[in-house]
Amino acid sequence: MRTALLVQYDGTAFSGWQLQDGCRTVQGEIERALRILSGEDIRTAASGRTDAGVHALGQVVHFDMKKEIPLQRICIGLNGIMDRDVSVLNAFRTGDDFHARFSAVEREYLYVICCHPLRSPFMQYRAAWLNYGIDENYIASFLHCLEGQHDFASFCKKQSAQENTVRIITGTEVRRRGNWIFVKIRANGFLHNMIRITMGTCFDLYRSHKPCEAVFDILAEKDRVAGGVTAPPYGLYLSHITFDPPLESFPSAFDLKR
Amino acid sequence: MRTALLVQYDGTAFSGWQLQDGCRTVQGEIERALRILSGEDIRTAASGRTDAGVHALGQVVHFDMKKEIPLQRICIGLNGIMDRDVSVLNAFRTGDDFHARFSAVEREYLYVICCHPLRSPFMQYRAAWLNYGIDENYIASFLHCLEGQHDFASFCKKQSAQENTVRIITGTEVRRRGNWIFVKIRANGFLHNMIRITMGTCFDLYRSHKPCEAVFDILAEKDRVAGGVTAPPYGLYLSHITFDPPLESFPSAFDLKR
Repeated sequence: MRTALLVQYDGTAFSGWQLQDGCRTVQGEIERALRILSGEDIRTAASGRTDAGVHALGQVVHFDMKKEIPLQRICIGLNGIMDRDVSVLNAFRTGDDFHARFSAVEREYLYVICCHPLRSPFMQYRAAWLNYGIDENYIASFLHCLEGQHDFASFCKKQSAQENTVRIITGTEVRRRGNWIFVKIRANGFLHNMIRITMGTCFDLYRSHKPCEAVFDILAEKDRVAGGVTAPPYGLYLSHITFDPPLESFPSAFDLKR
Repeated sequence: MRTALLVQYDGTAFSGWQLQDGCRTVQGEIERALRILSGEDIRTAASGRTDAGVHALGQVVHFDMKKEIPLQRICIGLNGIMDRDVSVLNAFRTGDDFHARFSAVEREYLYVICCHPLRSPFMQYRAAWLNYGIDENYIASFLHCLEGQHDFASFCKKQSAQENTVRIITGTEVRRRGNWIFVKIRANGFLHNMIRITMGTCFDLYRSHKPCEAVFDILAEKDRVAGGVTAPPYGLYLSHITFDPPLESFPSAFDLKR
């Protein structure tokens, strides 16, 4: 019986999503809880494999379970077993052709920036700290340049064995509240470290007083060396995954809005 | 030379404000940094002695230092020495008659509640979690009953050696955003655990379907036993201290707004 979970986690104390020997990972924590709950050895797949320190507000995970456990009991049971830095918000009974990774048509990430000359203890591990002021309109214009279909080879980790580095950025959004800046980026998919390198490149260009259109030259290089530094993982949140048909069209444990 | 600091801290990993042998406290961390910075043994006093797990957005701390160090160097120096869960936002050169505790004319605390049937990893240690819905208007009416001058003996820790348990609540404010409720309480001063017992009593009355005016009977008892449970410390933030003359009237390291 295929089930999808809507999951949140604070990535601070995890070595990322993916199973790794000897490391505490989100996948490991969820699969440990599924084993206790069902008595079965269950393998999960996620919509996005977040790196160490990256958070999730709306990660989607699917798995197959032989035992038939009501969806509410799956949510409450897993939350009762798992550590408190990961939680299941909802569960859906999807068809067998649903796949958390391959059925996703759009992914949205949030990048949170705190800009203030002095650090705040509350942004620690939860936001990227810039000790200089940055103009949110500059970030918005920079990201606007990247919208649409491009080869993002300059914006992905060099060692990654991705064959195709073309992606479509379907939308970007920048909002400021006091010293906090919230950046949303949506795409059909993202390459490894793509958002962190994108944000780092934006910060680099801003600090060196270059026009944001300089990003077109960086895109054209199609080489990681052309891009800027990789911005810290703390500011990054996997915020929303869109599926076709939407996840909400399947029977769910709760009919809740956060 | 008397100096006042505006301080923020995440109280999660501290055993409260006050120095305690063998415990990591905010006072201990600040005094350790002051010793390294100045070479002097410096004792600090704070506006509010927060308990273990309680946070501060606007704690004020004063001390005397023989060496004359520029205010900006004090801020930047202390932030460079201290752990990242406490930071100094500003420093003020006050007169010698300024006292963080006794010159304060009003204190404001914030209590953050997350109400959702399922827990979120992001509220962990940062907000009180209610797994049932609560009506913010009920909280507002309950707190409105407590405004003005009352004997709060039913709302303070029994063992505390406070002689006078009369305080004046000068204002309360309740705002809701989705499943998050933000409660602000201002008073001339607070008794030990007063806000946590106040919030716990409010939750108790709501869950037992009693009218919020039942709080008048609890006040009249003047006995801790009449009050409700002590709500968790995680939701509590010391948010603002008002001084007369205001702290902003003294020379400061930075002219910043957060």
